[in-house]
Amino acid sequence: MSYRAPVRDIRFALEEIAALDSVKATGVFPEFSSDLTPAILDEAAKLANDVLAPLNWAGDQQGCSLKDGVVTTPDGFKDAYAQYVEGGWQGLQFPTDMGGMGLPKALGCALMEMLQSSNMAFGLGPMLSFGAIESLIAVGTDEQRDLYLGKIMSGEWTATMNLTEPGAGSDVGALRTKAEPNGDGSWAISGQKIYITWGEHDCADNIIHLVLARTPDGAAGTKGISLFIVPKFLPDANGEPGERNTLQAIGLEHKMGIHGSPTCTMEYDGAKGWLLGDEFMGMAAMFIMMNSARLNVGVQGVGIAERAYQQALAYAQDRKQGRAINMDDHGPHEIIHHPDIRRTLAVMKAKIEAGRAICYHAAVEADLGEHMDDADEKAWSKRREDLMIPIAKAWCTDMGVDVASMGVQVHGGMGFIEETGAAQHLRDSRIAPIYEGTNGIQAIDLVGRKLARDGGAAMGELIEDVRQTIEDCITSSNPELPVLADALKPACDALEDATKWMLDASDADRLAGATAYLKLAGDVTGGWLLCVGAVAAQRKLKEDDGEESYAQARIAIANIFAQTALTGAAGLLGEIKLGYDPVFAPGEAVLASA
Amino acid sequence: MSYRAPVRDIRFALEEIAALDSVKATGVFPEFSSDLTPAILDEAAKLANDVLAPLNWAGDQQGCSLKDGVVTTPDGFKDAYAQYVEGGWQGLQFPTDMGGMGLPKALGCALMEMLQSSNMAFGLGPMLSFGAIESLIAVGTDEQRDLYLGKIMSGEWTATMNLTEPGAGSDVGALRTKAEPNGDGSWAISGQKIYITWGEHDCADNIIHLVLARTPDGAAGTKGISLFIVPKFLPDANGEPGERNTLQAIGLEHKMGIHGSPTCTMEYDGAKGWLLGDEFMGMAAMFIMMNSARLNVGVQGVGIAERAYQQALAYAQDRKQGRAINMDDHGPHEIIHHPDIRRTLAVMKAKIEAGRAICYHAAVEADLGEHMDDADEKAWSKRREDLMIPIAKAWCTDMGVDVASMGVQVHGGMGFIEETGAAQHLRDSRIAPIYEGTNGIQAIDLVGRKLARDGGAAMGELIEDVRQTIEDCITSSNPELPVLADALKPACDALEDATKWMLDASDADRLAGATAYLKLAGDVTGGWLLCVGAVAAQRKLKEDDGEESYAQARIAIANIFAQTALTGAAGLLGEIKLGYDPVFAPGEAVLASA
Repeated sequence: MSYRAPVRDIRFALEEIAALDSVKATGVFPEFSSDLTPAILDEAAKLANDVLAPLNWAGDQQGCSLKDGVVTTPDGFKDAYAQYVEGGWQGLQFPTDMGGMGLPKALGCALMEMLQSSNMAFGLGPMLSFGAIESLIAVGTDEQRDLYLGKIMSGEWTATMNLTEPGAGSDVGALRTKAEPNGDGSWAISGQKIYITWGEHDCADNIIHLVLARTPDGAAGTKGISLFIVPKFLPDANGEPGERNTLQAIGLEHKMGIHGSPTCTMEYDGAKGWLLGDEFMGMAAMFIMMNSARLNVGVQGVGIAERAYQQALAYAQDRKQGRAINMDDHGPHEIIHHPDIRRTLAVMKAKIEAGRAICYHAAVEADLGEHMDDADEKAWSKRREDLMIPIAKAWCTDMGVDVASMGVQVHGGMGFIEETGAAQHLRDSRIAPIYEGTNGIQAIDLVGRKLARDGGAAMGELIEDVRQTIEDCITSSNPELPVLADALKPACDALEDATKWMLDASDADRLAGATAYLKLAGDVTGGWLLCVGAVAAQRKLKEDDGEESYAQARIAIANIFAQTALTGAAGLLGEIKLGYDPVFAPGEAVLASA
Repeated sequence: MSYRAPVRDIRFALEEIAALDSVKATGVFPEFSSDLTPAILDEAAKLANDVLAPLNWAGDQQGCSLKDGVVTTPDGFKDAYAQYVEGGWQGLQFPTDMGGMGLPKALGCALMEMLQSSNMAFGLGPMLSFGAIESLIAVGTDEQRDLYLGKIMSGEWTATMNLTEPGAGSDVGALRTKAEPNGDGSWAISGQKIYITWGEHDCADNIIHLVLARTPDGAAGTKGISLFIVPKFLPDANGEPGERNTLQAIGLEHKMGIHGSPTCTMEYDGAKGWLLGDEFMGMAAMFIMMNSARLNVGVQGVGIAERAYQQALAYAQDRKQGRAINMDDHGPHEIIHHPDIRRTLAVMKAKIEAGRAICYHAAVEADLGEHMDDADEKAWSKRREDLMIPIAKAWCTDMGVDVASMGVQVHGGMGFIEETGAAQHLRDSRIAPIYEGTNGIQAIDLVGRKLARDGGAAMGELIEDVRQTIEDCITSSNPELPVLADALKPACDALEDATKWMLDASDADRLAGATAYLKLAGDVTGGWLLCVGAVAAQRKLKEDDGEESYAQARIAIANIFAQTALTGAAGLLGEIKLGYDPVFAPGEAVLASA
C-alpha cells in the first residue's frame, strides 16, 4: 500500500505538455525558476510518501469521531498536519508579500496531486483552505487580510466553505441560512449547513468558516446571497483565538469513503460573522474560488487513480496465477504477463496520464490567464482555463472512479477485501464526481456557459490546437506518430461535429446530451495532450540525452490511449445527439419498474 | 429504500422476449403452465418485497460476526431463511420426484433476480445451495442423493462450494488441499479454503461443503483434482445431523460490501468426506454447476441494478432542486424533470432491461438445451446457452456496478452518505464482476472456448438472429421500429467484423481484445433482445388489449438503448483490435509510475 509520488511523470506533464516555462516567461514569479521545480516536487513528494501515505489506510479504518462538538481525527493526522504547516506548503502558490512561497498555481496543482494521492481524506483540509485564501485575497478588506490571511496561509488556522443545506444542494439559491446585522458592522448568522468538509477537527487552533447566508434585504434565489467570515474563535486584540463563537459541529456524516475527513453538520446559532466582499455578492465571491476548487477536485480524480494504479501494478507484478501466453516456462507467472491484466494496467496508466495532462494544462493556463502581459494572450489563456475547468473536474473524477474500480478488478477476490486497500480507493474516489458541483452540473456548465456563451469560440480554439498537433504527428520522422494522428483525427472530427450540433441545438436538447459531450471533449483533450507529449518525447529522442526509454514510453502510452479511448470517441455522437424528446416525450411512466 | 419486484417487467422478458412458452411446449414440465407463471412470480415477490428487502440495509450495517467457530448472521436473517424454506423455494427448478417444484430454470432465474435484488447478502446462501443441488443430481450416487438432496432441496440444510485457496484463485489447478483415503470409502480432507460464501452461519441445521481437493495420486494441475462432500455434521443413521466433523470457520472477511453474507475462511483438519463423482473428475463436476452459477451471478448484476434504480427513481421523483427547463412554473421541480437526470434514469432503465433480457434468454435456452426433443434444436439451444453464459455473467455484472454508480450520482451528496442506502448497492455490486470467474476470465472463455472452438458457429447463429430482427423492425408498420434497426445494424456489423478479426487473430491478440469484444457482444445482444421486445410490443399494440402504454414504453426503452449503447458499440472495434504488441512490445517499464 505504499505510494511514491510520480515526480518525473508530473514534471513531464507540467514541462513538456503544459509548457510550464511559459509561466516563468511572464516574469511575475521571481521566486520561480525551472531549476526550482524538481526541488519543490521532491520535497512535496517526501511529505506525501513518508508522512501522509502511511496514514491513509489506518485513517480510513479508524475514521473521525465527534463528542460534545469536538472532532477527533485519526491517529497521526494532527502530527502530519503539523509537518504540513512546518513545510509552509499551504502558501505555495500565493504571493510572498502575503506570506506565501510565490510560486505558480501549476506547482500548487502538483502539490495537490500528491496530497490527494497519498491521503485524500487528509488532503481535503488543505484544499479547502486554498479556496478560502483565494477569496480573501480577491475580495477581503485589508483588515480581514491582516486578521486571517497570514494565519490561514501559514496553516496555523484552517478554513472551510459552507454552501450546502438540506434543501439547497445543486440549487445554492434555495438556501435559508440567515444573517442579521448586529449594528456594529458584524452580523449574526443562524442556520444549518451540511457536508462541511473539515468543519471541525483537532489539527489547528482555529477554523475560519466562510458561510453563504441571506441578509434581511436579500432577494430570493442566488442574487440575495452574501458571503460571511465566521471564525470558530473570534480573533482577540492580538489576533489570537479569543472568544468561542456560537457555532458547532452537531453531526458527522457516515460516508462511503474518505472516512478520515470529518464531514460535519454545522449549526450556526447567531454566530458572529463579517461580510466577505459586498452584500449580495456572495455567489460572485464563491465563484472566485470555484475555478481552482473544481480544478483541485479534478486533480483528486487523478491522484486517487494514480494511487489505485500503483497498488494494482505492484499486485500484478507480485501475484502469480497460471501460465501466461508467450512465456517459455510453465509458470505460474505474475499476472502482469496475462494480456487481459496487462491491457487493463496499460489503459489505467494511459487514462491517468491523460487526466494529469488535462489538469496541468488547465493550471498553466490559469497562471497565464492571470499574469500574461499581452491582453489578447491573457484573454486566450483565461478562455482556455474556463473551458478546461468543467472537463478537468468531471472527466478526471469519472476517470478516478473508473480506474479505482479497474484497480479492484486487477486484485481479483483480494480487491473486495478491505485489508488490501484497493477497495478504499474506490470508496474514496466516488465522492469526487459529486461534490464541488456534480459532474452533471459541470456538463451543463460546459454546454451552457462555456460553449453557448461565446458561440463555441473557445472550443474552436481547442479544436484548432488539436488539428495543429495532428499535423505535427503526421509530419514526424517517427512512424509511430502518424499512427497517433490516425486515431486523433476522427475523434477531433467528432468533437467538431458534436460542437456544431450543440450550438444549433435547443437548450433542452443541449442539456440532454451534455454529459456525453463532456466525455467526448475530455477524451479528445486528453488524447491531444498525450500526443503533444509524444511529439515532445520524439524531440527528446533526437536529443539523445539518456532518457530514451522514458521518452519512448510516453509515445507507447499515447498510443494505448489513442487505440482505446480515441478510437471509441466518435461512438459518443449518438448519445450526444440523443436530444430531449426521446427521454421526455414517452412520459415519466416509461421509467417505472412494473 | 423499499423494493417492489418488477413482476410485469420480468414476465415481459420471460414471455415476450425469451419465449418461455417454448419451454412449456417441450412437455417435460407437467407442473408448469403459463397460467402458473404470474402466481409463482407474485408469491416470490411477496417474500422479496416484504421479508427480505426490509432486512437489506440493517443487515449491511450490522454484518456478521464470528466467535469460536460460530457465525451469527444479522438480525432477522434466520427468520427470513425459515420463511424461504417454508415456501419451498429452494426446490423451485428441480424435479418433483426429488422433492422440487418441477418448474423450468427460467423461473428459477426470476426467483433468483428477486432474491438478489431484495437482499443480495441473503440471496447468496440460496444461490450456493442451487449449485450444490445441480452437482448432486448430476454426479451423486443414489446413496448420496438420499442422504443430502432432499435436505438441501427443502432448504433444511444449506450447501457451499469450496474452490479458492490463498494461492489458487483464477488458477484453480494450483490448489493444495489434500484428500487421503481413510480405508472405509471415506476420505480425510485437510487444507484451508478462502472466500467461502455462507461457509458457516446460524440459519440451518447443517451445512454441506463441496470441497475441491487433491488425492495422493492426483497429478499437478486441474487433472488431479477431485470433488468431495464434506458435511459440517455427519448424517447419523436416521439421516439427521450427527457427529461434528473436523472443520470450522476460522475467519470472516472484512469486505467492501455484502456484509450480511458470511464470507468464511474454512479450515479442514482431516475432515471426513466422500467423493462426489469420480476421482480426478472434480473440475468436470464443478463445471456442471458453473453454467448456472455464472448465470445466477449475471442475474445478481441485474438484481442489484434494479434495486439501485428503484431507489434512484424514487429519489428523483421526490427531491426538488432548481427550475427545470420546459416547465411553466418557477419550481423548484423534482429533479427527474432535469434532462441530465432524466437521461441518466432512462439509460439505467434501458441497461437493466437489456441485462434482464440477456439473462432470461440464456435461462430459457438452458431449459431448451436440456429438454428439447429434436436433437438439432436441443444442440442449438445448448450452443446458445454456452455462448450467453460469459456474456450474461460479465456484461450484466459490469452493468450492475455501472448502474449502481449512476444511482449514487442521481442522489448527489446524499448518495455518498451510508444512511441513504445508495452506496450499499454500489459496494454490494462490486463483488459480482470478480467472483465465479472474474469478468476477464469470462472474456477469455468467450473468445477462446465459446468462439474459437466452433469456428464462430454459435456467434454466427446469434448474428443471424440479430439480422432477422433488424428485418422485422425495418418492415414494421410502426415508424419507430425502423429507427431501432438503424442503430442495431451498424452495431451488428461491428460484431460481425470483430468476430472475423477474432477468428483470424493469434491467441495472444485475441486475449488482449477479449474484454472489449465481450462488451460489444453484450451491447449487441442486449440491444437485439430489446428490439425483439419492441417487435412483440408492436404486436400487442395492434391487439388493443388495454396494455398500450406498457407496450409503448417497451419501444421507448429499446430506443434509449439503441440511441446510446448501440450507437456507441462500433466504437469498441479499436480496443478489440488493439492486439498483444502495443501492450507488451514496449516492455513492462512503460507501466512504471516514475
